[in-house]
Amino acid sequence: MKTLAAQVITPEDLLKHWQGHRALTRRVIEAFPEKDFFGFSIAGMRPFSKLTNELLSIASPALKGIVNRDSQPFTEKDTEELTTKAQYLQKWDESTKKINDNWQKLAVEDFGETFNLFGQYEFPIIHNIFYFIDNEVHHRGQGYVYLRALGIEPPFFWER
Amino acid sequence: MKTLAAQVITPEDLLKHWQGHRALTRRVIEAFPEKDFFGFSIAGMRPFSKLTNELLSIASPALKGIVNRDSQPFTEKDTEELTTKAQYLQKWDESTKKINDNWQKLAVEDFGETFNLFGQYEFPIIHNIFYFIDNEVHHRGQGYVYLRALGIEPPFFWER
Repeated sequence: MKTLAAQVITPEDLLKHWQGHRALTRRVIEAFPEKDFFGFSIAGMRPFSKLTNELLSIASPALKGIVNRDSQPFTEKDTEELTTKAQYLQKWDESTKKINDNWQKLAVEDFGETFNLFGQYEFPIIHNIFYFIDNEVHHRGQGYVYLRALGIEPPFFWER
Repeated sequence: MKTLAAQVITPEDLLKHWQGHRALTRRVIEAFPEKDFFGFSIAGMRPFSKLTNELLSIASPALKGIVNRDSQPFTEKDTEELTTKAQYLQKWDESTKKINDNWQKLAVEDFGETFNLFGQYEFPIIHNIFYFIDNEVHHRGQGYVYLRALGIEPPFFWER
């Protein structure tokens, strides 16, 4: 029987952490009025729909690239057809499932391996994954400001 | 000789990740004009100085609490005397050193232990630490919007 040594964080727990963040971002998408999701921004920044395009184009495709060690270039083309919040949320949920499936293909040893994500980001896999999470938290923080500026109370940050 | 088993992330690497984020936040503080650091906000949110009070009151004091297993309550009182950006940056740098010192007192086994941070957040220590990082990325993302609204180019997100 193989017993796992003490871990700073286990793969299972890191997935739960990531999906907790993704669940919160989903609530932020939901909180936007339909038209503001596509049209509202501050200081010429991207509206939250465009930020969501980026998040969707990283999370599941990037993990798939990692699992298959396939350095396909980054593209947002699979999100360009999305024109309603409902479509975004559906795509979000599909990504959630794909992430859960692909995550099972990662062994503890993989996280320290270097991989050239999108043919562009050559880092240990754990740092690519941290980047997905941090980038999502970063853009979601911007979404919080958009919601506040729209007079909408964002979901609690600690609600995952 | 003790060899460490494969890790999703090592303690050393997690510290480097955290301090990389803190270095970026430091550059965001630097990017604000003195008066806007204290006075500018959007939609009634806290100016970036107040957000920084929160970040300073969590990072080093929280880690100290963890290392000593001391559930002292959260307080921002040690940051209330700060009235210039230079003072904030000095406090930031002092925290950086204290964090590096206290981090050395954590063993791999500690990260999975439950601790009641600030007498209020009873979670495994790794999740308290993830919370510090995520909360900083979240508020810094808001700072990026403030800078954009002020017509100032924020530092690159991936520059740590």
